[in-house]
Amino acid sequence: MNKYFPNVSKVKYEGPKSTNPFAFKYYNPYEVIGGKTMKEHLRFSLSYWHTLTAGGSDPFGVATAVRPWDGQNDDMALAKARMEAAFELMDKLDIEYFCFHDRDIAPEGKTLAETNEKLDEIVSQCKELMKKYNKKLLWGTANCFSSPRYVHGAGTTCNAEVFAYAAAQIKKALEVTKELGGEGYVFWGGREGYETLLNTNMELELDNFARLLQMAVDYAKEIGFTGQFLIEPKPKEPTKHQYDFDTATVLGFLRKYNLEKHFKINIEANHATLAQHTFQHELHVARINNVLGSVDANQGDPMLGWDTDQFPTNVYDTTLAMYEILKNGGIAPGGLNFDSKVRRASFEAEDLFLAYIAGMDTFAKGLTVAYNLLQNGDLEKFMEERYSSFNEGIGKEIVEGKVGLKELEKHALSNNIIVNKSGRQELLESIVNQYIFEGK
Amino acid sequence: MNKYFPNVSKVKYEGPKSTNPFAFKYYNPYEVIGGKTMKEHLRFSLSYWHTLTAGGSDPFGVATAVRPWDGQNDDMALAKARMEAAFELMDKLDIEYFCFHDRDIAPEGKTLAETNEKLDEIVSQCKELMKKYNKKLLWGTANCFSSPRYVHGAGTTCNAEVFAYAAAQIKKALEVTKELGGEGYVFWGGREGYETLLNTNMELELDNFARLLQMAVDYAKEIGFTGQFLIEPKPKEPTKHQYDFDTATVLGFLRKYNLEKHFKINIEANHATLAQHTFQHELHVARINNVLGSVDANQGDPMLGWDTDQFPTNVYDTTLAMYEILKNGGIAPGGLNFDSKVRRASFEAEDLFLAYIAGMDTFAKGLTVAYNLLQNGDLEKFMEERYSSFNEGIGKEIVEGKVGLKELEKHALSNNIIVNKSGRQELLESIVNQYIFEGK
Amino acid sequence: MNKYFPNVSKVKYEGPKSTNPFAFKYYNPYEVIGGKTMKEHLRFSLSYWHTLTAGGSDPFGVATAVRPWDGQNDDMALAKARMEAAFELMDKLDIEYFCFHDRDIAPEGKTLAETNEKLDEIVSQCKELMKKYNKKLLWGTANCFSSPRYVHGAGTTCNAEVFAYAAAQIKKALEVTKELGGEGYVFWGGREGYETLLNTNMELELDNFARLLQMAVDYAKEIGFTGQFLIEPKPKEPTKHQYDFDTATVLGFLRKYNLEKHFKINIEANHATLAQHTFQHELHVARINNVLGSVDANQGDPMLGWDTDQFPTNVYDTTLAMYEILKNGGIAPGGLNFDSKVRRASFEAEDLFLAYIAGMDTFAKGLTVAYNLLQNGDLEKFMEERYSSFNEGIGKEIVEGKVGLKELEKHALSNNIIVNKSGRQELLESIVNQYIFEGK
Amino acid sequence: MNKYFPNVSKVKYEGPKSTNPFAFKYYNPYEVIGGKTMKEHLRFSLSYWHTLTAGGSDPFGVATAVRPWDGQNDDMALAKARMEAAFELMDKLDIEYFCFHDRDIAPEGKTLAETNEKLDEIVSQCKELMKKYNKKLLWGTANCFSSPRYVHGAGTTCNAEVFAYAAAQIKKALEVTKELGGEGYVFWGGREGYETLLNTNMELELDNFARLLQMAVDYAKEIGFTGQFLIEPKPKEPTKHQYDFDTATVLGFLRKYNLEKHFKINIEANHATLAQHTFQHELHVARINNVLGSVDANQGDPMLGWDTDQFPTNVYDTTLAMYEILKNGGIAPGGLNFDSKVRRASFEAEDLFLAYIAGMDTFAKGLTVAYNLLQNGDLEKFMEERYSSFNEGIGKEIVEGKVGLKELEKHALSNNIIVNKSGRQELLESIVNQYIFEGK
Repeated sequence: MNKYFPNVSKVKYEGPKSTNPFAFKYYNPYEVIGGKTMKEHLRFSLSYWHTLTAGGSDPFGVATAVRPWDGQNDDMALAKARMEAAFELMDKLDIEYFCFHDRDIAPEGKTLAETNEKLDEIVSQCKELMKKYNKKLLWGTANCFSSPRYVHGAGTTCNAEVFAYAAAQIKKALEVTKELGGEGYVFWGGREGYETLLNTNMELELDNFARLLQMAVDYAKEIGFTGQFLIEPKPKEPTKHQYDFDTATVLGFLRKYNLEKHFKINIEANHATLAQHTFQHELHVARINNVLGSVDANQGDPMLGWDTDQFPTNVYDTTLAMYEILKNGGIAPGGLNFDSKVRRASFEAEDLFLAYIAGMDTFAKGLTVAYNLLQNGDLEKFMEERYSSFNEGIGKEIVEGKVGLKELEKHALSNNIIVNKSGRQELLESIVNQYIFEGK
Repeated sequence: MNKYFPNVSKVKYEGPKSTNPFAFKYYNPYEVIGGKTMKEHLRFSLSYWHTLTAGGSDPFGVATAVRPWDGQNDDMALAKARMEAAFELMDKLDIEYFCFHDRDIAPEGKTLAETNEKLDEIVSQCKELMKKYNKKLLWGTANCFSSPRYVHGAGTTCNAEVFAYAAAQIKKALEVTKELGGEGYVFWGGREGYETLLNTNMELELDNFARLLQMAVDYAKEIGFTGQFLIEPKPKEPTKHQYDFDTATVLGFLRKYNLEKHFKINIEANHATLAQHTFQHELHVARINNVLGSVDANQGDPMLGWDTDQFPTNVYDTTLAMYEILKNGGIAPGGLNFDSKVRRASFEAEDLFLAYIAGMDTFAKGLTVAYNLLQNGDLEKFMEERYSSFNEGIGKEIVEGKVGLKELEKHALSNNIIVNKSGRQELLESIVNQYIFEGK
Repeated sequence: MNKYFPNVSKVKYEGPKSTNPFAFKYYNPYEVIGGKTMKEHLRFSLSYWHTLTAGGSDPFGVATAVRPWDGQNDDMALAKARMEAAFELMDKLDIEYFCFHDRDIAPEGKTLAETNEKLDEIVSQCKELMKKYNKKLLWGTANCFSSPRYVHGAGTTCNAEVFAYAAAQIKKALEVTKELGGEGYVFWGGREGYETLLNTNMELELDNFARLLQMAVDYAKEIGFTGQFLIEPKPKEPTKHQYDFDTATVLGFLRKYNLEKHFKINIEANHATLAQHTFQHELHVARINNVLGSVDANQGDPMLGWDTDQFPTNVYDTTLAMYEILKNGGIAPGGLNFDSKVRRASFEAEDLFLAYIAGMDTFAKGLTVAYNLLQNGDLEKFMEERYSSFNEGIGKEIVEGKVGLKELEKHALSNNIIVNKSGRQELLESIVNQYIFEGK
Repeated sequence: MNKYFPNVSKVKYEGPKSTNPFAFKYYNPYEVIGGKTMKEHLRFSLSYWHTLTAGGSDPFGVATAVRPWDGQNDDMALAKARMEAAFELMDKLDIEYFCFHDRDIAPEGKTLAETNEKLDEIVSQCKELMKKYNKKLLWGTANCFSSPRYVHGAGTTCNAEVFAYAAAQIKKALEVTKELGGEGYVFWGGREGYETLLNTNMELELDNFARLLQMAVDYAKEIGFTGQFLIEPKPKEPTKHQYDFDTATVLGFLRKYNLEKHFKINIEANHATLAQHTFQHELHVARINNVLGSVDANQGDPMLGWDTDQFPTNVYDTTLAMYEILKNGGIAPGGLNFDSKVRRASFEAEDLFLAYIAGMDTFAKGLTVAYNLLQNGDLEKFMEERYSSFNEGIGKEIVEGKVGLKELEKHALSNNIIVNKSGRQELLESIVNQYIFEGK
């Protein structure tokens, strides 16, 4: 397909010295690293919303984006044009996966029944294009936050009719995700939170939210949807306080309601930083709790307090992210979904390509650096030595649960000199730099 | 006792019009509100560290405080003078409780054995003074963060010898807390976190921290200490990232390690705000999870990014805090511990009185306002109406688990008009203002 | 007029005990305080944009507001209906002033000429209504930020054609403001800033911005517009970095380009806090530099990093704001413009009334408290004593410029004991509380 | 000298592949880039306070640092040992400059006279060592913030005696700086700000601060000190609000008091980020206002709200900083002073070397990348094209002041189609990455 972006050819790898802005410099899809191709490691995904439907509006200005699919006659024609454009983009960028919300791909109708019909029509088109272009659905989800209906929440609304509507929408989104072979299904609770505690029954709202998740689990079983359920944390925005604040909060919630075996976490970089965690922190916490499910690849601006969802271009973040992902044994069946939007001022159609290339190259570079770091083991060896006192003697007894406070007091009373060693943060940061600059 | 503050008499309630800076304007200890005296509701506690040992140093300057117990000959004489001064303060301020870390009340010796001896000597003095002045220990704790020994953590250290030392220190602190009849024992993990993930084995560290907590639980049982164990969350400072980030994080941790039946949460206002939560949010989350254990009463500066631990003077915060506490059925066996320090520029001894009076009056006012709000039920009635759709029909069926996605879809398909009602945030804020200004 | 809000009568003062949500409890317009009525002190203004045109959309959701002027046939009919509704609101709320951007009151046409015609038509309607209802224009301004045209800035654009367009728009807005007797004209540089320094020539952009301001000053002189020019600082949003960061930054800019005699500052509370200043700080800095011109009255959420523009309900903020304004000798010819929007969840038409009442009552209470504080002089007396050493001896010589480093060294060498006094922050905060709770 | 760090030899450049932690990988002092050696470009300076006197204490813990000069008999012996160690460090690290506060190098005595004598004694020692090792003083300053004397400020104190003492201290520090050939003199107003506006006369305080600066200018002229005066902005910490908030604020202040021709700005990276600016932003603002004087090279943690003063290891920051410095024509007579401290957990003496190497290498890499960027002109060419409309036609007339609002309106009315071009942020970020990874 060469319909919407006739001036951009298939993007190719041209190597780090290339000056062609429409070429990959670091992302070489079929290069093998540690037994897998870059493409298999990275499992890049296009985000339908930011790429196809977003226009660059912000709280102080209207849309700026100039899109080749503008000017259709009606909303279904627009939906179909966007779907075609999505596949042209994926094809030209060699991206294998995509993700969507139900309302990204098809418009609402006058009734829920009509809305579902419109959705079905677009899903048919999508299925054909998937087959034709050999593309896959990473995950699906339902948009239960944009409509005024969800002003007070969806699963955590104060209005039982709204809860029922959200449930119906999720049921359909699950069916559609299954129909398209989606490898996962995500819950991002865009309105699941509160504006003020003065009018909020948090206890009931959270109980209800757990009920909704359980219903989804039950229905997936009933229809044979075996994809991974995921929760995507975010601390604030759009509501003042979102319930799924961060990975640790979600883990506490899942454990309370006995849902933890059914859900993994979809970590978004910019949501991590809004919660005052690094991207790596969130990936790490998810990994050691066996719930690292998928990634929304983007970056925020550390000087701003809202979700800028910028394309990731910071190699420190992608290196440490890929470090966690490699230690996790990879991210499959999740992937790296570019939940990233071009800046409002990058409003030309070509910017979509330039931005995806920027993000893909930065993650490819991060993968290479992280792989080299792990292969050479500089950080791992430091760590092993640092914690070695827990492999023998009193340390081993602590870890094995053989001692209590009394035994430890006895040990401590007989040992008045304790020697610690430097944590060497500056050296370790230098080593990471050396790998980034040199591949070492 | 009239030794250290000869110019300040017992502080008395003089009512809201008083212009005497050394009088209570709102805290009338024996006034009965809803069947309990103010004193019983508020359970104020003096924090030994900020009140007796802090000097006002900060990262850019040395201590400024002028204290009547300055100029002692040696560290034990100083410790004893401070203990006397503590009781003079509690006596004159009519504060019934106090809290301490082991190292606040007695200095370290050359060995752990010597340190324990010094501690025992001061504990004896303390016990006598408690009897004499009829004062009680709200909770005890061990300072496992100030010594260089704990530079890499205590329960989450990389050095098994340090873990053993911390365990020994906690054992002794538990014994001392029991000896003094303490109603609780707090873990604040001042170094339980990390500076950089590049050198951190978070998984081992958290497993070890859980082991330490379990050892404390076991030992308490062994010696018959029946006080409440508490964890005090804080997101950052002194380490870059503290493990006990906030209440939700601690709940997830306790649930993972099956510790939740043994621990409640000690909420500090300034720690809440550092985690981007309101004080009320943290109290609320703890309350609805049945773990609201005790409170560190202070306030931060919303424009600053560190722990200022100011005396609480914002009546919005104290009103909403007391609202949560009243709904919790009170805070006992916890209390309101003023983990507050006079500002570095408030360095005169009299400022200690002025600051405690400010904090106590602000909480007393908050108690009155919150009680009136609850009695009249303006907020509760609004809430009841707001969520009433879950008391009948489809809402009731959702709550009772009688419906799943299919039933809800059927319901939604037959119901195309959904009406939400305004959340009325501005009105509710006005109502709170009216109660604050008028008592209504 | 009783067309759009037939169920709400003129809002009256009913006193602090009233339980009527549609009555003022503290704002008693014609009560005299210190020789002026409350109304004269407060000079409340309605913001056209947030009140008449905003719909409650946010980056994750569409508009929620239900407005009685919805459903007009075309954009000019809508503009006229809104104008009528604005006067009904001002009339019923007893608000004397309003403020607008050109594009708030009239829509854009296909060409600038057509746009200007539409604007003229609405200005005529407005002028009649002003006469009929005896309302005044506090200030006018041009919206040079919402259109895609201004994506890279208006006065600081990289595109000279855009600069010219902005200049033309400002010329017309000045004429319209003069036509309606506006007492001021505001520049808020919504796109005057940058997204990334990688593509920004800040030096040229700031020089051009100064050129634009000078052109406006010159043209105002030419047409005889004698209202006050104002700049409204904001540090970030919508651009990553706005040039008019805060009052101090604007002062530096005005001094560089010799513009300071022509401009005062319009302080917005929420913009102050986004810049990490308190509202009072910004008012204070403006006041002592003789540039406190007008106020955008609202409040932010200290836990959020974007402009929530909430109606002001925090009495601490309004008390300290009115303290500065009283010390400034009042705010005229500026006023207190409610640049405040109802929360997205407060979407009913009645919420407009409830929110304005909340804001007006909170400022009225703040006025009373501040007036009492100043009358009794508790803070002023403390301050006078605190700085008294500069009224005599060496202090006086310093202030009068009679001594230099040598004389001061000589003085210091002969004076080895320096005594400071406590800053008494906690006591002073207590005193403010007492005035708020009691009127004292 | 090989007295304090016998195990560390002179640090040499070994190139990017070296695995020797005690070697430079990127800093090759005598490599010529654009006609100057790296050493001449970078003008590295050792900060005496963080390197020689800091111990790693923080608000929750005592010092951890193990230093080879520990264990001296008295404070003057300690001062002398530190001075020797400073030169051993500079010698081994090939650092040509250092900076100090008066109280870093010598202790306070009982009187100011005695303090000055102690200072003179150490200055003599310093002078000899400077000659012996061929080292230079980048700038000197007076510590007017650590002593309790300065609790309410120095130049902005409420106590005239304190002002006089500060003036005396600054006089002596100026003399000492001249004696040692210092190339600059810095004012960092560590206590020049306020804790609460409730007790602050900001107007008098700022007037007095200007008086103090003028006295320093006058005295420098009198004694023939021709070094550059510098002000170092910081927004907060230690006081709640520091007067020298950021570069823009300081410019406004200097312009108000006619001091701008005497002062340049000393930009600290971590202070920039605390003010919500990037490091590059502050350098850029200073550069285009001709006041970029010197740099305090460090970095903060974007997740923390206080001054961590970490050694700079982020190559994005150093690249963009060096970009500004190269465009400034270099930083001389200022330099890159490492106002950086080893992390508390990096407490071994060797960490000082590892940390300086990390910082020097990161800036050397940044220099190379920035130089290549400028040489190839990728960003400059983009920028030139972007603003080209101001070089001709209406744009040129705007810049040359030939048109006003009327002419621009006429132009705009005749020109209804305006075309903007994309800002290309993502592409530009990619290009910077390519230069960092490849040198291109």
